[in-house]
This record gives sequence, C-alpha cells and structure tokens, in this order.
Amino acid sequence: MKILVQKFGGTSVGSIDRIKAVAEICASELASGYKLLVVVSAMGKSTDTLVSLMEGLTDTPNAREQDMLLSSGEQVSIALLSMALSKLGLKAISLTGWQAGIVTEAKHGRARICSIDEVYLRSLLEKGYVPVVAGFQGITEDGEITTLGRGGSDTTAVALAVALDAERCDIYTDVDGVHSTDPRLVSKTSKLETISYDEMLELASLGAQVLHPRSVELAKCYSMPMRVRSSWKREDKGTLVCDNAKPSMLEGARSVCGVALDRKQARLSIVGVPDKPGIAHSIFTELSDQGVSVDVIVQCVSQDGFTEVDFTVGRADALRAQELLKSIAVKIGARETAIDPCVVKVSAVGAGMIDQPGIASTMFKALGDRGINIQMISTSEIRISCIVSEEQGELAVGAIHDAFGLAPQG
Amino acid sequence: MKILVQKFGGTSVGSIDRIKAVAEICASELASGYKLLVVVSAMGKSTDTLVSLMEGLTDTPNAREQDMLLSSGEQVSIALLSMALSKLGLKAISLTGWQAGIVTEAKHGRARICSIDEVYLRSLLEKGYVPVVAGFQGITEDGEITTLGRGGSDTTAVALAVALDAERCDIYTDVDGVHSTDPRLVSKTSKLETISYDEMLELASLGAQVLHPRSVELAKCYSMPMRVRSSWKREDKGTLVCDNAKPSMLEGARSVCGVALDRKQARLSIVGVPDKPGIAHSIFTELSDQGVSVDVIVQCVSQDGFTEVDFTVGRADALRAQELLKSIAVKIGARETAIDPCVVKVSAVGAGMIDQPGIASTMFKALGDRGINIQMISTSEIRISCIVSEEQGELAVGAIHDAFGLAPQG
Repeated sequence: MKILVQKFGGTSVGSIDRIKAVAEICASELASGYKLLVVVSAMGKSTDTLVSLMEGLTDTPNAREQDMLLSSGEQVSIALLSMALSKLGLKAISLTGWQAGIVTEAKHGRARICSIDEVYLRSLLEKGYVPVVAGFQGITEDGEITTLGRGGSDTTAVALAVALDAERCDIYTDVDGVHSTDPRLVSKTSKLETISYDEMLELASLGAQVLHPRSVELAKCYSMPMRVRSSWKREDKGTLVCDNAKPSMLEGARSVCGVALDRKQARLSIVGVPDKPGIAHSIFTELSDQGVSVDVIVQCVSQDGFTEVDFTVGRADALRAQELLKSIAVKIGARETAIDPCVVKVSAVGAGMIDQPGIASTMFKALGDRGINIQMISTSEIRISCIVSEEQGELAVGAIHDAFGLAPQG
Repeated sequence: MKILVQKFGGTSVGSIDRIKAVAEICASELASGYKLLVVVSAMGKSTDTLVSLMEGLTDTPNAREQDMLLSSGEQVSIALLSMALSKLGLKAISLTGWQAGIVTEAKHGRARICSIDEVYLRSLLEKGYVPVVAGFQGITEDGEITTLGRGGSDTTAVALAVALDAERCDIYTDVDGVHSTDPRLVSKTSKLETISYDEMLELASLGAQVLHPRSVELAKCYSMPMRVRSSWKREDKGTLVCDNAKPSMLEGARSVCGVALDRKQARLSIVGVPDKPGIAHSIFTELSDQGVSVDVIVQCVSQDGFTEVDFTVGRADALRAQELLKSIAVKIGARETAIDPCVVKVSAVGAGMIDQPGIASTMFKALGDRGINIQMISTSEIRISCIVSEEQGELAVGAIHDAFGLAPQG
C-alpha cells in the first residue's frame, strides 16, 4: 500500500466551505492512487471558544478536565470532514484519538505519544476507507483522554505516518511552504523547495511558525518526509522537509536557507563577577533548578579578576529570572545585575554553512553596514544568531536576507 | 452507600452562570449525605449549532458520523461542570459515555442501552468522587460511539440509577414539576406532588413534554423513583414519579390527575369499505409494514354491508399515509378516502379512574357543554382520549381541567 498522511490545521477546516475544499484536496490525492489517512485539528476559533467558557469558571482548570473539554473540538471537525468526504462518494470514517489507537503518557495537557496500535487503521485502509483522525489527542493506558500540547496535531500526523510506514506526511496550513524568512518582515522572500530536518528544526525553534519542532524531530528520527503546503493553493507543491543536507547541495551549495527572528527574548547581565572556576555553574544551575530556560550565553574575558556574564531568557521568564539573579549576585559576591527586556534574536540558518568559512563575517558585515549593533553572538553547526535591539530586529532580518541573496532571482 | 443520581438538561447547563448554579445544587445534596452521580446534556443551543454546521454539508448525514459529531456536545458540558464542582472544593471527574461503561446496541442515532459496567463508577463513588457523566451517549461492543436518540439523557440517568441501585433519580428541568396540564394552556394548574409511572407514561406519551416516556418505562420496570424538579427553584421538591396508584389513593382517590393535549395528529378515513372479516387487518398491516404508526382507531357499525374506518396518525406521516390508504382502498374495493390534518387529541389521565364509573361521562359532558364536537374516542384503563378539531383543542383542555377540579384549591 502506498499510504499518504495529510494533516489540516484549524484555519484549513475553519468553516463549512473550507471543509468542503479540504475534502476536494483529499479526493484528488486518492484519485492519484494513494491510500489516504487524514488528521485534522479543531475548527478555527472553536478552541478559543471552549477556553473562554472555561475561563468563566476557573483560572486554574484541572488538567484532566481541560483535556476532556478541548478534545471535543477535534471530534467535531473529524465528523464534519467525514461527512464532506462521503458527500463526494468516498468511504470515510472518523476516529477519535483513542479509536485510532494513539496511546500517550498520563500527562494531561502535554502528553507524548507512547505507541500507536495501527492494526485497525491498516485494515480500514486496506478496505479502501479514508480514516479521518482527531489530531492533538490520545488516551492513556488507563482510558483517560489526553491532549498532546503545542504542535500536537502535526505530531499526531507524523506519528501515524511513521506507524503506517507512509510514503509522506503532508502538513496543510495557511502558508504555501517554508520561506527564506517571514514574509511579513521582508517584501520579497523565496519559498524553499526543500529543506533539511536540521534546518527546519533551527527555523522552527527560532520562530518561523510553520511547523512545530516536535513534529520535525519525530520526522527526522524516522526519516519521514514531510511536505508543508497550502490548503488554499492546491497546485502548489509547497516545501519538502527531508533528510540531511542533500537538497542544499543540489541547489548549488546553498549556504544559508533562511533567516529567523525571535522576538521573545530578554537579556540579563551580571557584572563584576569574581572570576573563579565554577562561577558559571553556580549561576546557571540555580536558574535551571527554578525552571528558567536560558538561551544565548556570553561570558566576557576577565579583567582584573572580574568578569561579566550575559545571557538571554524567554521574555515571559525575564522578571522572575532577574529576581533569581539578584539573589545569586549576593551569594557569589557579584557587583550588580541588569536587565534589557527589549532585545531580539536574528538567526541565519543553513546546513550548507558547515565547513564554509566566511558565512559569519558576511552576516556581521551586513549588520554593521546598516548600523546595527550586535550585542551577543551564538552559533551552532548550521546556525549563527545575533542578539540585537528590538527596534533594529526587522532591519537586521532584511539585511541578512539580502546579504545571502535569498530574495527570488530575476 | 446512599446514592443519588441527578440529571440536568440542556437549558439547566445553558450558560456558565447556569453551570455554576447547577454545581451549587450538587454541593447541597452532597452536604445532605448522599453520594452523587450527575448526568448532563449538551449545553443549551450547542446541539443546534452542530446540526446547522452539518446541514451546511449534507442533507443525509451518515448516522455514525452524526453520532460522532453530536456526542461532542456533552463532552463539553461534563468537563465544564466538573470544573465548576472542583471550584467549590468537591472531587469531581467527568466521564464520557464510554468511560462510564454505558454499552449500547449498534444502532446509531437511536441506540438502546444494553448494559452498564458500574464497577468503575462505584469505586469512584466510594472514593468520594462525583462522577459527571455525559448523557445521551454510549459505546457499542465494537468501540463505536452511539447516541440514544430522543429522551436519551433522561434514560442515561435512570439506567445509571438502576445500575448503581440509587435511592432516587432527580431530573432537573426548566419546569417545577408535573402539572395537571400544560400551564401554557390553562391559567391555573396544580403541580402534582406525586404521580404514578403509568400516569406519567400516559401524560408523557400524550405531549406533556416533561419526561420522555422511555425513561419512565425504564424507571417503572425497576421501580426507580424519579423526581422532576426545577433547576431554578432549588427549594421546590417538584413531582415524585413512583410506583403504582398508591399516591393517588392517599390524596383521596383522585380520579384524574392530568389533562394532555397532543397537537401532532391527523385523521384519515376510508369510507364505503365492504364489511368482511379481516378488512381492518388488511388496512393496518399495510400501513405498519410501511412504518406508519397509527394511534386512535374507530370502526363504525356496518350499514348495508359497508363500513367506515377512521384513524389518526402523526401529522408528519399524514400525506404518506394518505397515499398508502388510496392504494389500499383500490385493493379492497372501498369507495373513497379522506384526510383532516387539523385535529388534536385531548386526554384525561388518572390511575384512579380504574373501576370508577362516570369519569368518561363527566368528560364528555364538559366538552358538550362548551359546544365541542367529539370526533373519535379511545380509552385505556387509566386514560380517556377524544379527537377534536384543532381550533377547539385548548378550549377542550380547559373544560376537562375544570370538570375534574384540577385547578389549585382555595
């Protein structure tokens, strides 16, 4: 069996007309010879509606009851999509997470998928049915309904594709693929035909909100090709996310494939720190013990036996991190602390930058030429990130995008 | 364990404020020493919303998918009520039909309950939890979600009460109990303190839309006391529905307890029918084979070897029944057929009328005194029904209500 898994997000099934359009997409893939399994999210704003009902009752909902509530949303969309498919003469059957055999951990609101019993799904596919499966939800071994948390529906789709040994997992969304940067930031962006899992992971983590990194991690782990495509532009093939750096090389050693902007950063500094071995450890262990996740870290070269440590945290954690840092400063005898909540992180990503010298300097020159001050730098094998002031963030993205020639050619 | 089952209908949980009020009612019963299990319907208009979405897709929805769709409604209300109960400091846990162990036939849209596995429910009650169970839904042995059709949530509540050997099943609704007739028809009605199952069944079947006859049948079968009460008037005890005629006797041999009006009738006639044995059989077998349900039947005394047969059907079936009747007339050599879609049925109900002569004549006199023509009469042991013209229906109800002194005393 040549199996294709398709996933449609909330806006793709946001109205009856959209659901009809999705059914047409499914029908055309079936006509091309695939066995099809479809995963859907809750309709458009329906989750928001449920959440606002809940907020009328309590600020601290029980996580189990919240899962019970929210998982009803996908139950509506799977039933409606099945009806729309039947209307086109297809054999469709809707399945909740538990009916589809999706077994998760017993962690309400953020359960990970433990296993999928795919026997029933496979038998449905063999009989020519299109199973329409509720994304974002599963069941524990004790029969409790769980939800998978952020990125859940994409993850459901990839997990089912892996369990069924599908040929590909198509993620339909409201953008036409993965672009060289956020089209809201730069007027002329290129849509990438292909991107590697690693590149996608860096871009996903860095704020290009097309695919949740969790689903990409899973796809990477099992080498499951994913295609990001638009449910509005049916003819468009979107962007294929697949194994390692091959695609980049085929395009002529593309060094940088995309530029991302993460606005949710805040910079903290601790100054006048006695430069002793283990000092970084004391600072960051305490922060991590308190659940503060640190991103970029820079420690300056010591002067006169004192050093300075700068780091960024998620902006939501900034004030709490600052309080913690003040008490750490007292403990380790540091002079003072500072906070700048108005910084952003711009990153150039590309598997092709491995072993290619000069990428970083091209990036730094592009920023310098526009008068943008780089506050901090961090790098990985396939990424270079700079922390800059918030007001210069968009300018920085445009500068880097231009410098690496990412605008469409011609 | 002293167990009480409470059921709250759609209007009782129609808003966040109503859900909070319901939680208060539950809390006060718990405080009085009961173990509590609560059954809820979908919130107010939510089922209508789902149906209108569905109607945007298809006029002929697959019954399985319709069950999948509609059963999501109760999942929302159970989760919200559980949260409201938790907010009051109670231990509540929401359960879908399948989680509550409600196993049904594999008939989508109108499944009957086969069995209830009450072990889990009982263990929750023993641990002090309030299980909040989705009404109207269950699961087949094959793991398919079903709905129970009309009267489903009341039936869920009674079935759970029976399975758990509860002390009573309280049905909360938007009226304060069972009245001597529909308060919209007669200005001064009496609320009945008690009513027997049989009386309630006659009234329920006859259009007093308080309890669905299906739930009353089940309660009668297992002698489970039910109480109909208002979720708006907490202090009001409502009406107790319980075993046989005892209550009527205690109230001084009340002969008639209520008067019902069924507006959904149509009268059909077949005239000039050769009066041979088996003629009624030929007419009604054919109608029943075609799924037309016949209510009141009157066959006139034969004249010159010909007779006339009159009967009523539900108004929705009237035109179809007329077509059938025309072809039957040809087959059996009857002269002609006629239809009057504008008739209604008024009924006086009371267990006390058994062995009490004069009840029927009191009723007929009351109608005659107001100039109301009785077209057809039908009786059971505890009911007398008259078919009258639609325009005289309400007048007839008032006349009978007065004649039996059902208005409140004093």
